[in-house]
Amino acid sequence: MKPYASLSPKEAEKELAALRALYEKEKSMHLSLDLSRGKPNSEQLDMTQELLDAPLTREMCFSPSGFDYRNYGIFDGVPEMKKLFSDLLGIPEEMILIGGNSSLQLVYDTLMRAMVFGVVGSDRPWAKEEGLKWLCVVPGYDRHFRIAQSIGFELVNVRMLPTGPDMDEVERLVASDPKIKGIFCVPKYSNPTGNTYSDETVVRLAKMKTAAKDFRIIWDNAYAVHDFDENGDTLLDIFAEAEKYGNQNRIFYFTSTSKISFPGAGISMMAMSPENLAQAKKYISVETIGFDKLNQIRHLAYFKNAAGVMAHMRLLGKNVGKKIAIAEQILDRDLGGLGILEYQKPKGGYFLSIDTLPGCAKRVFALMAEAGVKLTQVGDTFPYGVDPEDRNLRLAPTYPSDEDLVKSMDLLTVTIRIASLEKLFAL
Amino acid sequence: MKPYASLSPKEAEKELAALRALYEKEKSMHLSLDLSRGKPNSEQLDMTQELLDAPLTREMCFSPSGFDYRNYGIFDGVPEMKKLFSDLLGIPEEMILIGGNSSLQLVYDTLMRAMVFGVVGSDRPWAKEEGLKWLCVVPGYDRHFRIAQSIGFELVNVRMLPTGPDMDEVERLVASDPKIKGIFCVPKYSNPTGNTYSDETVVRLAKMKTAAKDFRIIWDNAYAVHDFDENGDTLLDIFAEAEKYGNQNRIFYFTSTSKISFPGAGISMMAMSPENLAQAKKYISVETIGFDKLNQIRHLAYFKNAAGVMAHMRLLGKNVGKKIAIAEQILDRDLGGLGILEYQKPKGGYFLSIDTLPGCAKRVFALMAEAGVKLTQVGDTFPYGVDPEDRNLRLAPTYPSDEDLVKSMDLLTVTIRIASLEKLFAL
Repeated sequence: MKPYASLSPKEAEKELAALRALYEKEKSMHLSLDLSRGKPNSEQLDMTQELLDAPLTREMCFSPSGFDYRNYGIFDGVPEMKKLFSDLLGIPEEMILIGGNSSLQLVYDTLMRAMVFGVVGSDRPWAKEEGLKWLCVVPGYDRHFRIAQSIGFELVNVRMLPTGPDMDEVERLVASDPKIKGIFCVPKYSNPTGNTYSDETVVRLAKMKTAAKDFRIIWDNAYAVHDFDENGDTLLDIFAEAEKYGNQNRIFYFTSTSKISFPGAGISMMAMSPENLAQAKKYISVETIGFDKLNQIRHLAYFKNAAGVMAHMRLLGKNVGKKIAIAEQILDRDLGGLGILEYQKPKGGYFLSIDTLPGCAKRVFALMAEAGVKLTQVGDTFPYGVDPEDRNLRLAPTYPSDEDLVKSMDLLTVTIRIASLEKLFAL
Repeated sequence: MKPYASLSPKEAEKELAALRALYEKEKSMHLSLDLSRGKPNSEQLDMTQELLDAPLTREMCFSPSGFDYRNYGIFDGVPEMKKLFSDLLGIPEEMILIGGNSSLQLVYDTLMRAMVFGVVGSDRPWAKEEGLKWLCVVPGYDRHFRIAQSIGFELVNVRMLPTGPDMDEVERLVASDPKIKGIFCVPKYSNPTGNTYSDETVVRLAKMKTAAKDFRIIWDNAYAVHDFDENGDTLLDIFAEAEKYGNQNRIFYFTSTSKISFPGAGISMMAMSPENLAQAKKYISVETIGFDKLNQIRHLAYFKNAAGVMAHMRLLGKNVGKKIAIAEQILDRDLGGLGILEYQKPKGGYFLSIDTLPGCAKRVFALMAEAGVKLTQVGDTFPYGVDPEDRNLRLAPTYPSDEDLVKSMDLLTVTIRIASLEKLFAL
């Protein structure tokens, strides 16, 4: 098939008619499918069911030195769990705090503390300043955007490039505007684009001059070990880079096992410079006597150590990678060469992000919905829910069965072709 | 023995000499004991070990309607867990949100949200106001005081009476000062005094006029079901009372299973008027995708329902009550009739709070420490760590073994007698 843009009006009309017939046929099958949810399916969760099946015996609840983990105490995490994350991510244990079941909550609470107390280097609590702004790489993670919006920041879009955020733009903005207090980054297998920040991007983020002296990078490394196979991306150590420029306090690092063990019942962690962590601990030790240590012990009993996590992730990554590959193959098969879709093939993570021709995403969403397949709401990957070009669609292929995924993707390519022809030829 | 105040100087000197000899003898035994920690001992925790021993099977992870609890979703709590707390506390399920492992964290986050967003009825976020104050019933719970202090409130003391906070004083203060935004209450078996608010106190709290239209009561009912036996105290339903006066939004209600199942690995909950809860949920759903549902399922599998919790609490209450009784018996035996100690005998809860003669508590603490027994820091039960009369001591008899408890209490009565004689006769 030749590129749609090069079709004659007549050819376009004929093609559209055929596609519409195909679409009507699919619609009559009354599908009820869902490509919208970035969550694992039950078969993936079964892979760690043993973590739940195994008893947590009394003996397991005591530390080597006799501390009873069933009791109060050790508010910043069981030492062995700190070591596990330390080995997994290459971060010194002294920089790590183990949290509860949600790294998103750690992110949120970190920003709330900044509002009420300020961060290290702030002149005053952020809540005492007016007109604060936050940089959002787009397309990006909707829950990040909602946190900053809810807390009261004005959200400023920065384009995602294959190498990460458009650093020319980031540098320009943060150097000139002291109201910009930070940026959200999912640096490896970014949600939803699936790309990993280049070494140069990491260095520039670590090094850049910021007008706000208390600027912060929320480094949400949610997919740190989520490679599909042994050829995964590598990510530069931002703490090491930031240290070179005296900017170690700039980094607030987060991750969790939500997409390793169980979403909502895993272990979260945050890592910070010693100075940042001392400040955070001062406040968190007022907030809580401690996080759930017994769930940390359960995870340790199952995974043992970082190597155990990696062994599990080789299996899980293969499983997720297979789903992503199914989706990619259908996109390539049906849309290859038509010039109506752009996307990057991720080497890990959880999502596939595709860009239609400008002005087509909402139409695709509507056509899919009409035929019984739910996609992620168009705009969800942008601040305020608005995709200015109306072209990005986030596909979450992990939840449906392979069979349902194929059905959904088959329909998706039909709807993308329909929407593209309608747009190109004003049909 | 006659009251110490009625001794002649000579008698006092003789008594003191004998006590000092006794004290020196005890000291030579090099004790290393701890009465400071308000936490259960391992034997108490063993009572719910089965909750941890039992596997959480795949089957148990699915709701009747097929929802997989191992996955994201249901952010405000598993319905059966809401029902358990509802039945246990007599609060409608619609007013309940199930949290994570820490009700203290729910309290903290609630106040942080008030700072950044305000509460229902606020003109502006609390962080935008200056000079805010918070009422603290003294003696009270140190961790409450630290939360308010850390967030930036000026702490205002109100005396604890046998009936609860001194309501004349509370009413006077809140009616006249719009800067007073709230009060901490542990209404049943208050920490550390062990008394329960009278019906009249609850009604007056629900009814009183407050100068701040967004005044809040943090109703931390941590010991709601922690009776020593069937003759426990009863607490009036503050929501029902508040509703009569249109003040239902005034109440933020919290509790947890920290002292039912496991400290730091239990289930917390908060309850609020529908209007308050809708506001809280709006923000909490941005903070987290959800709390740990699997730990809720574990607790449900073990306790089944409210009746199951009550059955467990009859055993646990007996266990804690026995410890408290040991301490009380030694106080009565050694100090009865001397006129140097005041205390109330609680019918439940976790602590024993005793008042020495004014100006003696620190001396008792020092004598005990010198002889190897750690008490709760004097002043910890007061804002800013200052007991203005230097007389309150919080005893936490749950952690030591019975034998160690007896040794500690034997020494404690000796040191109280020494400190009292020194003070009364300037010796």
